[in-house]
Amino acid sequence: MKILLTAFDPFGGETVNPAQEALKQIQAPAPDMELIKLVVPTVFGASTQAVHEAMVLHQPDVVLCIGQAGGRTAITVEQIAINLMDAAIPDNQGNQPHDEPVFADGADGYFSTLPVKDMVAAIRNAGIPAAISYSAGTFVCNQLMYGVLYHIHHEFPNTRGGFVHVPYIPVQTSTMNRPTPSMALEDLVRGLEAALRVL
Amino acid sequence: MKILLTAFDPFGGETVNPAQEALKQIQAPAPDMELIKLVVPTVFGASTQAVHEAMVLHQPDVVLCIGQAGGRTAITVEQIAINLMDAAIPDNQGNQPHDEPVFADGADGYFSTLPVKDMVAAIRNAGIPAAISYSAGTFVCNQLMYGVLYHIHHEFPNTRGGFVHVPYIPVQTSTMNRPTPSMALEDLVRGLEAALRVL
Amino acid sequence: MKILLTAFDPFGGETVNPAQEALKQIQAPAPDMELIKLVVPTVFGASTQAVHEAMVLHQPDVVLCIGQAGGRTAITVEQIAINLMDAAIPDNQGNQPHDEPVFADGADGYFSTLPVKDMVAAIRNAGIPAAISYSAGTFVCNQLMYGVLYHIHHEFPNTRGGFVHVPYIPVQTSTMNRPTPSMALEDLVRGLEAALRVL
Amino acid sequence: MKILLTAFDPFGGETVNPAQEALKQIQAPAPDMELIKLVVPTVFGASTQAVHEAMVLHQPDVVLCIGQAGGRTAITVEQIAINLMDAAIPDNQGNQPHDEPVFADGADGYFSTLPVKDMVAAIRNAGIPAAISYSAGTFVCNQLMYGVLYHIHHEFPNTRGGFVHVPYIPVQTSTMNRPTPSMALEDLVRGLEAALRVL
Repeated sequence: MKILLTAFDPFGGETVNPAQEALKQIQAPAPDMELIKLVVPTVFGASTQAVHEAMVLHQPDVVLCIGQAGGRTAITVEQIAINLMDAAIPDNQGNQPHDEPVFADGADGYFSTLPVKDMVAAIRNAGIPAAISYSAGTFVCNQLMYGVLYHIHHEFPNTRGGFVHVPYIPVQTSTMNRPTPSMALEDLVRGLEAALRVL
Repeated sequence: MKILLTAFDPFGGETVNPAQEALKQIQAPAPDMELIKLVVPTVFGASTQAVHEAMVLHQPDVVLCIGQAGGRTAITVEQIAINLMDAAIPDNQGNQPHDEPVFADGADGYFSTLPVKDMVAAIRNAGIPAAISYSAGTFVCNQLMYGVLYHIHHEFPNTRGGFVHVPYIPVQTSTMNRPTPSMALEDLVRGLEAALRVL
Repeated sequence: MKILLTAFDPFGGETVNPAQEALKQIQAPAPDMELIKLVVPTVFGASTQAVHEAMVLHQPDVVLCIGQAGGRTAITVEQIAINLMDAAIPDNQGNQPHDEPVFADGADGYFSTLPVKDMVAAIRNAGIPAAISYSAGTFVCNQLMYGVLYHIHHEFPNTRGGFVHVPYIPVQTSTMNRPTPSMALEDLVRGLEAALRVL
Repeated sequence: MKILLTAFDPFGGETVNPAQEALKQIQAPAPDMELIKLVVPTVFGASTQAVHEAMVLHQPDVVLCIGQAGGRTAITVEQIAINLMDAAIPDNQGNQPHDEPVFADGADGYFSTLPVKDMVAAIRNAGIPAAISYSAGTFVCNQLMYGVLYHIHHEFPNTRGGFVHVPYIPVQTSTMNRPTPSMALEDLVRGLEAALRVL
């Protein structure tokens, strides 16, 4: 199985992105799994285009995108992406869309086509907190998940796709004054590898 | 410097106590630091007596007690213990005091005599979330902190004492349905060792 | 403008439903607005059927459904309903579906066709906390919102529909030991009337 | 019974203080209760001096101080004040003490001498969320509670004293983007009157 695994670069004033740090360390958890790793810019449009190009090039069986969801306590597997961009902060190129669709001709929402519940169960069985999330937000993460699923629906009928959000890592929250949950990078890696195992 | 380091056994239906697990792994972070480790029962009275006996026997320079504060996002260094026992759940011997003082002739509260702010800064500098806490609750943890400080005030004028609360570890929260923060055991150990360094 | 306004009866062990209590008191905020009020059972299927019948009978311009979202701090206007029923507790007739679609032939999600942002702004301008929500959950509330939008898409092209979640009222949280936000019934009513004004 | 009831003026960038707004509306809930109302500045030192002067002048049986604790979900009756000023923001005269005692010769902490649990129960019985709090913080509120109890211990042996924190009111949180609990002013007033009834 060929898996295209993506993560974003740092954004919103952070100097690291735990998704990107995890991506570096993740190893294929099974001999028949090939991981193609791609770091994408935290930019509306450009992130989806980068993943689309990689999909055309590598023809993966699965596209799994990883992003940071600061403030969450668990690794969360997203259920649905929505056709809405509404940014509270600018992306890494200064874009800040409001009330715009990701694709004007897209459906309101697309469900993940990955086994969301099985992935959550697998992470939890590894002793790591996990949950389903029913909203990937309205920033670049949701835009990428939506874009990938849009392209899958239109061009790649044999590819499955989905998104996983990871919490902050401790080095990020250690300087915050407001109580904010985090998860060790080692546990992010172990949790994500556990999720890969059930794809 | 001789440091008596204590942790509680599991309570409240949990099968592990992260404080106890951390205690096993903590190593003296400086050559002139001697650690005396003691696991105490999560029992009103008995826990304080066990630590008192160890204080008499070992005459430590510092008593640092460690306990679990499930739900917190950071290692928290306690500022004050209060002369009040008011238990929402029974302790490990079935005691559940309500509105009782720890020591009838004690002050309303005793401040930690450890460098609370320095300990927090040291843990944060190690990249691990930490904060001061102004309440150790009204269960066995606060009772032990209060008891140790009471004995210090009455019998051990040259000993310093305090309490640190640690979050759940991921294996505990991975089975909870409500979003609950946790911290990796490795980070608890590193954070506590960083705090020891500034005693 | 004819508005069909619905609310659920109490569920999950509660003896009141703040949505139902608010429905009783809401008054049309404009002379050209006619409110048709309907209490629906907190039951999968039956709730949607009841609203469908009322839509056939009254041919409303707008269907606005109101439900309780215990734990939220604000009146939240839902952006999207999803084609998924996954119940953590049984509904009021003992049904507890898992991983089932609301309608097998429905889209993955349907956006609210009400002016979500304007409604939020109107409630806030009335001095009452409000926010957009991007998940109505996977219980009966989401099912009803999805069902109404499904019927609108298939049968009622000139009708607009959406859903608003309200927090607990204080009488519900006054007996809870865990800190839980609430909002006064009077503020729910005022907030909902402010939202109606911009439909 | 003569009750000196105090509240602070707005601070921290807010234009209202819910404690002050509640103070205006509170009425004595029993014919034998006389309320003396005093608004005090949110200033270290000056607030305690103002209340001390009023205690000398009026010789009240009870001093009950009210303050805002933004972010709490319930009316909270404080158990203890501590001898520590450590301000995260400046007070209304620009003072921002760090690690200073309220009174150099004071005890580490003073318990409220009001019936904390009975007050919580009375508020809850009125259908309004309430809880005991074990920390009044380290800002002006704690300083005033500590100062009042210090003066009671040293000069007014027949006076009882304590502190109640109230949540934000909705008009404050309606403009905040982060979800923040609030409580209607009417409920603050009703809850505080219920608490007065059991003094």
